[in-house]
Amino acid sequence: MPFQNFIPPRRLLLGPGPSMVHPRVLRALSTPLLGHLDPAFLALMDDIQTLLRVVFQTKNRFTIAVSGTGSAGMEASIANIVEPGDTVIVGVNGVFGTRLASMVERCGGKAIRVEAPWGQIVEPDAIDTALRRSGPVKAVAIVHAETSTGVWQPLEPIAHLCRTHDTLFIVDAVTSMGGAPLEIDRWGIDVCYSATQKCLSCPPGLSPFTLSDRAFAAIKARRNPCQSWYLDMALIADYWTEGARAYHHTAPISMLYGLREALRLVEEEGLPARFARHQLNSDALLAGLTGLGFPPLPPAGQRLPMLTCVTVPASIPETEIRANLLSTYGIEIGGGLGPLKGKVWRIGLMGESSTEAHVLTLLNALEELLIRGGWLSTPGVGLQAAARIYSRRNS
Amino acid sequence: MPFQNFIPPRRLLLGPGPSMVHPRVLRALSTPLLGHLDPAFLALMDDIQTLLRVVFQTKNRFTIAVSGTGSAGMEASIANIVEPGDTVIVGVNGVFGTRLASMVERCGGKAIRVEAPWGQIVEPDAIDTALRRSGPVKAVAIVHAETSTGVWQPLEPIAHLCRTHDTLFIVDAVTSMGGAPLEIDRWGIDVCYSATQKCLSCPPGLSPFTLSDRAFAAIKARRNPCQSWYLDMALIADYWTEGARAYHHTAPISMLYGLREALRLVEEEGLPARFARHQLNSDALLAGLTGLGFPPLPPAGQRLPMLTCVTVPASIPETEIRANLLSTYGIEIGGGLGPLKGKVWRIGLMGESSTEAHVLTLLNALEELLIRGGWLSTPGVGLQAAARIYSRRNS
Repeated sequence: MPFQNFIPPRRLLLGPGPSMVHPRVLRALSTPLLGHLDPAFLALMDDIQTLLRVVFQTKNRFTIAVSGTGSAGMEASIANIVEPGDTVIVGVNGVFGTRLASMVERCGGKAIRVEAPWGQIVEPDAIDTALRRSGPVKAVAIVHAETSTGVWQPLEPIAHLCRTHDTLFIVDAVTSMGGAPLEIDRWGIDVCYSATQKCLSCPPGLSPFTLSDRAFAAIKARRNPCQSWYLDMALIADYWTEGARAYHHTAPISMLYGLREALRLVEEEGLPARFARHQLNSDALLAGLTGLGFPPLPPAGQRLPMLTCVTVPASIPETEIRANLLSTYGIEIGGGLGPLKGKVWRIGLMGESSTEAHVLTLLNALEELLIRGGWLSTPGVGLQAAARIYSRRNS
Repeated sequence: MPFQNFIPPRRLLLGPGPSMVHPRVLRALSTPLLGHLDPAFLALMDDIQTLLRVVFQTKNRFTIAVSGTGSAGMEASIANIVEPGDTVIVGVNGVFGTRLASMVERCGGKAIRVEAPWGQIVEPDAIDTALRRSGPVKAVAIVHAETSTGVWQPLEPIAHLCRTHDTLFIVDAVTSMGGAPLEIDRWGIDVCYSATQKCLSCPPGLSPFTLSDRAFAAIKARRNPCQSWYLDMALIADYWTEGARAYHHTAPISMLYGLREALRLVEEEGLPARFARHQLNSDALLAGLTGLGFPPLPPAGQRLPMLTCVTVPASIPETEIRANLLSTYGIEIGGGLGPLKGKVWRIGLMGESSTEAHVLTLLNALEELLIRGGWLSTPGVGLQAAARIYSRRNS
C-alpha cells in the first residue's frame, strides 16, 4: 500500500475552529528546528511570553504556552488549582462549562454547578448566591466565549465577586482571545487559558496560559503535588518563567515558531482594530443569516463577535446543507453539540477567517443551496442585508 | 518593540532530541489546514494509524498519536492504567524511569522501584524477584531506551515475566521507535508510547501510542474515571479508533500532517535498513569517540544505536567544549542529567541525524577543539577510527 503525498482539498474554514492560517504562519512552521535548550530558542520563548502578555493584557510573569490544545490548558488550570476536597463553583451553560466541572471532579474536587440554559449567559447574581451559600470556595471557573452556543459571558462582575469572596477566578478564553477584549489584570482574572486555532489563527496544538501571582502562590503552596506531571506548573515554571530554563519536557518547537508569527500578526494589526474587525464581520454575517431565516440563538447583547450560533428551522435539513457546503463549496461550518445537535449552526469568523470576502462567499453559497432546495425564492436577500452593514462603515 | 522575522541559526542537531527534520516533513507542516472532523482529515488519521502500526509492528486497533510530547504519552500510559491503590513495578536506572515512578504515585498508585545504577540495564531477574515478592501487580513499566544514559534495555524477558504473572507491560519507547527493533505484538507489550522528535525525525509535539486489546479492556473496566480528561483513552477512542469520529479535543492538525510524512519516509526506507543505518553510524561514532579518549558509559551489549553516552574525563571542561561546538560549529550535543551532569555527553544519531556526514563532521569539530585546547596532539585519530568502521561496510 503506497502512501501518496497528502494534498488537502481547498477549504474555507468558517467553523468553530480551526480558523484560516496566514501564509506567514504556515511558513514559520516549516522553519528548521533548534534544540529546546538552544539559546536562540530560549530567546524565541521570551518573545512569545512578551507577545502573549500583550494579548492577555497582563504583566503576569507566569505567561506561557502549554504544550497541548485548549483542553490541555483547561486541564492545566483545574489540575493545578484544585486539590482533593476543594470546592469550585463552575458556570455551566454549554459543552465547555460541563467539561470544566467534569475536570474538577476528576481532580477530587467538589464542583458546584451554576447552570443556565444553553444559549444564555450565567447570571453573575447566580454566582453570587452560590458563593454566599457555599463554605470555602477555592475558585470560580467560567467560560468567556461558549463555543457550543455562541454566548458572550460578562466577566467583570464575576471577577469583582471573586475579589470580595477572596476566591480565585479561572477563565476559559479559548475562543475569545485575540477576537474580543480580554483584560486579565484590569478585570482581575487569576487563571486564564486559551487556544491557538481560534482568533489567533495559528494551527491547534498549544494553549496560551497565564497565572496571577496569587494563583502561582496557591500552586506553590499545594499540600499535594499536582496530579498531572506533564501539566504541573510548579515544575514547568523552571523551564518557562523562573530563569533556570531547566528541562521539563521537550517543547513543541515548530508550533512555537508558528505561534510567535501568529502573535506578531496580532500585534501588527493592533487589538482595537482586530476587535472592531471581528465585530463588523459578525454583524454583517448575522444580518445576512437573519435575512435568510436563521435567527441567532443567544439574545441581543450576549452574542460573540467571532462565533455566530443560529437556529436552523426544522424544515431545513441542516446536515445535508452543511455537507453540501463542504463538498460543493469547500466551506466548513459547525453543527450543534449535545442538546443542540441538528438544531443550530455555529459559524466562526475568527482571526484570518473574519473577512468581508468570507462573509459574502458563505452567504452566497448558502443562498444557492437554499434556492436549489426550494427553501428560498428571492436570491440576494442575505447578501443585501450584509451589504447594508458594510455600507455603514464609511458613513 | 518591533519583533523581527525569526531566522534561526544553522544547527546540526546531534543531541538527545529533537533530531534533524527532513525537508519533506517541514514542507508538510506548512500545508493549509483542514477541520479536525473533515472527511479528508479523518482519512489522514487512518493513514497515520496504518503507518504507526507498521513501525510499532502491531495489529492493535488502538494505535494513535497523543496530542502532546513523549511525556504526555508517558502520562497517558500511567494515568489510564493505574487506579488509586494499584501497584506498579517500575525499572529505574535513569531520568525517565524515575519520572515513570513519580507519575505512578501522582495517580495514587504504589510504585515499587527496581533500581539499577545509571548506565546499566535493569536485570530481568530483579523484576522477577519483585513480581514474586509483591502482592497483585497491575503493571510493570520500563524504559526501552534510557535517553539519560544511553542504555538499551532488553524487553522480551520482561514481557515473558508479565505474561507469567498476568500483569500488564508498559514500555517507554520514546527514543527507540524507528531506530531499533520494537515488536509490540511478537514481544507482548500492552502499552507503548513514543515521541516524534527522536528516530521518527518529526518535530516534537506528538506521542505515538498503542494499546493491546487487553490493556484497552482494562481501561474500559476501570472503577474510577481516568484522572486526566485530556488523556482519557476511553474518550479518545471515540475520536480515533472506534469508528464514531466523535469530537473530543481539536486534533493538532499541522503536527499530524508532519507525522504522516515522517512515517512515509520511515516506510520508504524500510525498518531493517533503518535499523542497520542507525547501528552502523553509532558504531563509527563510538569508535571515533573512544579513539579521542571518551569511553562509553554503558557496558558492551547494552549500548543504544541512536544515543551514544560517553564519559568525559575530568580534565576536559565539558560545558565549555559543548558550548563551543554550538557557537563555533553550530553542532548541538547533550550534556548529562541529574547525577551525570558534567560527567557525560549524550550524542544522538536519530532518524535524519544518523548519517555518515554528521558523524565525520562532529568528530572533526571535536578534534579541532581538543587540539586547540591542548588535550589532543594527533589530528585525525577519531576520524580514522570511524573510517575503519565504514570501510568494513562493503567488505
